[in-house]
Amino acid sequence: MSSDTKTNGGNFFEDFTVGQVIRHATPRTVTEGDRALYGAIYPTRFALPSSAEFSASVGLAQHPVEELIGFHIAFGKTVPDVSLNAVANLGYAECRFHRPVVPGDTLSTTSEVIGLKQNSNGRSGVVYVRSTATNQRGEVAIDWARWVMVHKRDVDAPAPETVLPELASSVAVSDLVVPEGLGFGGYDVEAAGSPHRLGDYAVGERIDHVDGVTLTDAEHMMATRLWQNTAKVHFNTEARPDGNRLVYGGHVISLARALSYNGLANAQLIAAINAGSHVAPAFAGDTVYAWSEVLDTAELTDTVGALRLRLVATKGRDESMTLKVESEGKQKYAAGVLLDLDYWALIPR
Amino acid sequence: MSSDTKTNGGNFFEDFTVGQVIRHATPRTVTEGDRALYGAIYPTRFALPSSAEFSASVGLAQHPVEELIGFHIAFGKTVPDVSLNAVANLGYAECRFHRPVVPGDTLSTTSEVIGLKQNSNGRSGVVYVRSTATNQRGEVAIDWARWVMVHKRDVDAPAPETVLPELASSVAVSDLVVPEGLGFGGYDVEAAGSPHRLGDYAVGERIDHVDGVTLTDAEHMMATRLWQNTAKVHFNTEARPDGNRLVYGGHVISLARALSYNGLANAQLIAAINAGSHVAPAFAGDTVYAWSEVLDTAELTDTVGALRLRLVATKGRDESMTLKVESEGKQKYAAGVLLDLDYWALIPR
Amino acid sequence: MSSDTKTNGGNFFEDFTVGQVIRHATPRTVTEGDRALYGAIYPTRFALPSSAEFSASVGLAQHPVEELIGFHIAFGKTVPDVSLNAVANLGYAECRFHRPVVPGDTLSTTSEVIGLKQNSNGRSGVVYVRSTATNQRGEVAIDWARWVMVHKRDVDAPAPETVLPELASSVAVSDLVVPEGLGFGGYDVEAAGSPHRLGDYAVGERIDHVDGVTLTDAEHMMATRLWQNTAKVHFNTEARPDGNRLVYGGHVISLARALSYNGLANAQLIAAINAGSHVAPAFAGDTVYAWSEVLDTAELTDTVGALRLRLVATKGRDESMTLKVESEGKQKYAAGVLLDLDYWALIPR
Repeated sequence: MSSDTKTNGGNFFEDFTVGQVIRHATPRTVTEGDRALYGAIYPTRFALPSSAEFSASVGLAQHPVEELIGFHIAFGKTVPDVSLNAVANLGYAECRFHRPVVPGDTLSTTSEVIGLKQNSNGRSGVVYVRSTATNQRGEVAIDWARWVMVHKRDVDAPAPETVLPELASSVAVSDLVVPEGLGFGGYDVEAAGSPHRLGDYAVGERIDHVDGVTLTDAEHMMATRLWQNTAKVHFNTEARPDGNRLVYGGHVISLARALSYNGLANAQLIAAINAGSHVAPAFAGDTVYAWSEVLDTAELTDTVGALRLRLVATKGRDESMTLKVESEGKQKYAAGVLLDLDYWALIPR
Repeated sequence: MSSDTKTNGGNFFEDFTVGQVIRHATPRTVTEGDRALYGAIYPTRFALPSSAEFSASVGLAQHPVEELIGFHIAFGKTVPDVSLNAVANLGYAECRFHRPVVPGDTLSTTSEVIGLKQNSNGRSGVVYVRSTATNQRGEVAIDWARWVMVHKRDVDAPAPETVLPELASSVAVSDLVVPEGLGFGGYDVEAAGSPHRLGDYAVGERIDHVDGVTLTDAEHMMATRLWQNTAKVHFNTEARPDGNRLVYGGHVISLARALSYNGLANAQLIAAINAGSHVAPAFAGDTVYAWSEVLDTAELTDTVGALRLRLVATKGRDESMTLKVESEGKQKYAAGVLLDLDYWALIPR
Repeated sequence: MSSDTKTNGGNFFEDFTVGQVIRHATPRTVTEGDRALYGAIYPTRFALPSSAEFSASVGLAQHPVEELIGFHIAFGKTVPDVSLNAVANLGYAECRFHRPVVPGDTLSTTSEVIGLKQNSNGRSGVVYVRSTATNQRGEVAIDWARWVMVHKRDVDAPAPETVLPELASSVAVSDLVVPEGLGFGGYDVEAAGSPHRLGDYAVGERIDHVDGVTLTDAEHMMATRLWQNTAKVHFNTEARPDGNRLVYGGHVISLARALSYNGLANAQLIAAINAGSHVAPAFAGDTVYAWSEVLDTAELTDTVGALRLRLVATKGRDESMTLKVESEGKQKYAAGVLLDLDYWALIPR
């Protein structure tokens, strides 16, 4: 007697309906162990998550972990229900960090289906979800929209009515959350490692973060597992025809963000992610570099500003910092671009 | 002037006597760092060890780490004294988890020699020990019997009287410990990730856990070191003629247990290990899958039940879930079987 | 518009002046996660850092992490300012551990330039710094001197006046710090794993630590990142012509120190580092062994003694424990020697 009804095979396109709410499994308590592992896996040196003293000196009551720890954990919960049968992770929008995640917090994630569009080939469709991660007090920690292309189980299943959500191209400055207590009035630039404040960055400026890191399988698997992300392509050489383990896109985000310290040391907290594209896959042996472009600036409080940044990860260093090239009359991402992420970071004025 | 009398060369068969008690070195304090590393190395998603909130919701006063963290730490302490000169780890029996291990607990292990039998070739013998891990309050956390084949230092040393301990083929239901406070009355199946309770599992049912993980050397070495297990074959490519690092058998146990979440998400705690065989060695590059068979069921309290499970790890996925095949009139383990473990898990009724 | 003025390119020889004080960036809070990761990466089994109970039993109010965790963190902070453009790390001296580092401590490092000497080729010079790591209360945790050979940015820059600091060949016994409260009166040799006390070691004695560990890239990168050490040769296969990632010298120190448990189990705490040479580079795939030589002994309190030890790491096991050989009339390090470290450890009398 055999059973495969007890294992989760993930949802297919026809399993989703607009308005459906999915409560994802496995609440997860964040600990100091997560902070240490994050620092072992990514070359992060931002003073605020590194130092409890620095964190207290800018007014935070508890010492937060990096925003991306919360994001990856919250995101990982959605994978078994939303993207286990995904063809591709198409995009992110409207991701906001509502309050810092601190050790001891337990994160749970719920998603609502906000859009559906079957592809013209009838074999797959795009699912739009808005996911919300809450802590043990029921407070929203992070929310975001994403859309993924998901296989149909049954090609003959009827197409649902197309619903396309309206998603902002970026999070409005007025929607950026400054964590309770945060003030950069007594900010210690020496401890932080850079004198450059909001006013020192100009829209259009590009910063080559110089350093590179060569990926290993053990490291990206450990990171991805830490977030309880179950997508098999990250772990199993038998899951892909080429025998390679695909690096979780979030691993490249965290790596590029950590590399961006060298040039953006005072961009201490991520306040929002406006958009993101995983342009090309990454594998062990690839050496990842990063560069940033300043897209916008904003003043949030007397002491806290925000930089809107494009963060680009590349395979191999591109000193020219070229995002797109023209090819047959179209703009295409330049060879080597792995990630194109658009986010808001908080920085001292 | 050189000294090798200060290094531990391990015990040989003739160093053991029945009734001998060995207090193993290096007490070890468990921390949240262990939980995080366990989650980075194994794809575990059981809600209870993942979430302090979930743990509290089922009545536990403190947030336990996975039982196998305690087991591996307690077991690791015995290696330098019991199995440093082992030819093979032959079996386990009567392993009971007496109380949850929580961060802050310090584990120490003591072993008593309970049996001896020299092999007919005169070059080695089987040593039976019962090991007991206690916490800093002297309370028993875990105890188990195991037997290993150990080299003789001196082939001419006389054979000891043969003593074979009586060991139960499985831990009796009446000996299973339900942790203090544990009750599954308000159990949250959505948070746990599966609706399947005790009554949904039938004796004889087999569950293919579907997912696979390809092993790396860095990961199994980090895990094995975390347990302070010193057996050199796990770490040193010069310790084996083939130049491979042998994966610690406990690594395969933890990996298979974590994979079993997909189909056994509510089997939250391990209560006992009845028996275990490391059928074949595993190495980096192997892709490990797992399947389970329900061997028995039991009702322990109004809300807590137990599943007796056979957990089988395989190299390569075996969708047929074949344990043994007949070969020349004998039952042999099927090709690819790495581990055959028999254990009791607690699950909501 | 592009900017490379915001990234740190590190200091060159002509950027240093004697008396200059550099406050290094990124204060870092130590956590239990660091202890766990250290135990996952190095095969350490010293009872004191392993067990909070053992630590309390020898009089310590809080459970310290291994001294080398503090050292690597404190050292890592100096890399971006002192040795990013280093040709070679030439030596250490006068390193003292003033008080145990415990989880919750936040370490910051400041360096003073204490010597400068341009090389005769005019292309580089030696920079001597004394670095001091303090905790969040401003108390000195660790201080040490080191000297590195650093490239000049501009070969035509004038040579500074040569200043050579006086550095002791070893830390005087009277300068060794016994941590507050530490007493080995009730020392538990069974828990520690060895009966050998101060008086059991004789000057000149050599101990082969027997065990070996084969290096992997993932492990040394994770360790080095944990210390926020940014030297690119450790992480980036494109940073060296041979495409290998150079193992951080401190990784070899920690590995050898952990291996030395087998023979020096009671040498529980490092009190000082007298000198250290990274004799040859190490890479993934190398199997590292260690041996020690007793250089001196001292009695510090009624119950606490000190061993001055030479700790030698080798690539491949050298059972002859040969440090140097004569070659063309000169004493040279024997083939395979990776590290020659001279340190003081505290041990029960």
